Amino acid sequence: MKRVRYDYETFVKDLKQLADSIPDSFNAIVAIARGGMTMAHLLGEYWNIRNVFVINSIGYEETRKLEKTKVFNIPDLLPCDDILIVDDIADSGETIKAVLDTLKARYPDKRFKTATLFFKPNKSIVRPDYWLKEVDDEWIDFFWSDDLKALT
Amino acid sequence: MKRVRYDYETFVKDLKQLADSIPDSFNAIVAIARGGMTMAHLLGEYWNIRNVFVINSIGYEETRKLEKTKVFNIPDLLPCDDILIVDDIADSGETIKAVLDTLKARYPDKRFKTATLFFKPNKSIVRPDYWLKEVDDEWIDFFWSDDLKALT
Repeated sequence: MKRVRYDYETFVKDLKQLADSIPDSFNAIVAIARGGMTMAHLLGEYWNIRNVFVINSIGYEETRKLEKTKVFNIPDLLPCDDILIVDDIADSGETIKAVLDTLKARYPDKRFKTATLFFKPNKSIVRPDYWLKEVDDEWIDFFWSDDLKALT
Repeated sequence: MKRVRYDYETFVKDLKQLADSIPDSFNAIVAIARGGMTMAHLLGEYWNIRNVFVINSIGYEETRKLEKTKVFNIPDLLPCDDILIVDDIADSGETIKAVLDTLKARYPDKRFKTATLFFKPNKSIVRPDYWLKEVDDEWIDFFWSDDLKALT
């Protein structure tokens, strides 16, 4: 699998391009942990949205893939109507689907949109409402995974 | 008030120094939103901790300062014993104190530590367990607040 390094400078440019391509406005952002957290932080500041939340999921227990991704720490979205769910990449898409299904079931009257930086159209079971870059079978080495470890 | 720009490169070096100065090990990280989110994301990756959570608070309603900071979206910490709470800065310290008090009340048997990049010793009502830089009355312009807006 081809590995692509994704650094902070590229991320900031990409995130601005993604943000500016989204016509909707939101009163809450939900990041899927961990991958969507830095995105959600910067988007919250950019759009001046203080309701920035995080949701957690587990797809594996030990090394065994769970039949269904478990979603937990569901944020309190009662005061919010338009919510953007963000993650770094729609790869298999299973996490995004599980999070979206869970949030829609809990909050049937709210409007949800999804946004990712990367999207694998040949693999993901969901198509985000907004994405920036399509990839095939690349593995992305995100700066948030590598930069601390790279320092000596 | 003196303003200091805090860029991503400095942040990564600082965060590594802060992380490596902490002798404890943890099985969960709780970021105080929004300021602690990028820190928690990178620390979770660095320490290989998947239990990265976020907690929210409100200190103001409209422009009126609340008597007590409201803390909400308390994460499920039942499976975790040693938890690191992170925020960018202990300024007044009121948010960190409110979060710590809330978490200790909810989980009296867990061990909590707090870590911040910046600490205002002359102002903060709490002293974090770990911090990297002391500041007096500077205002820090964090990259996560500015970098998207700075792009044209």
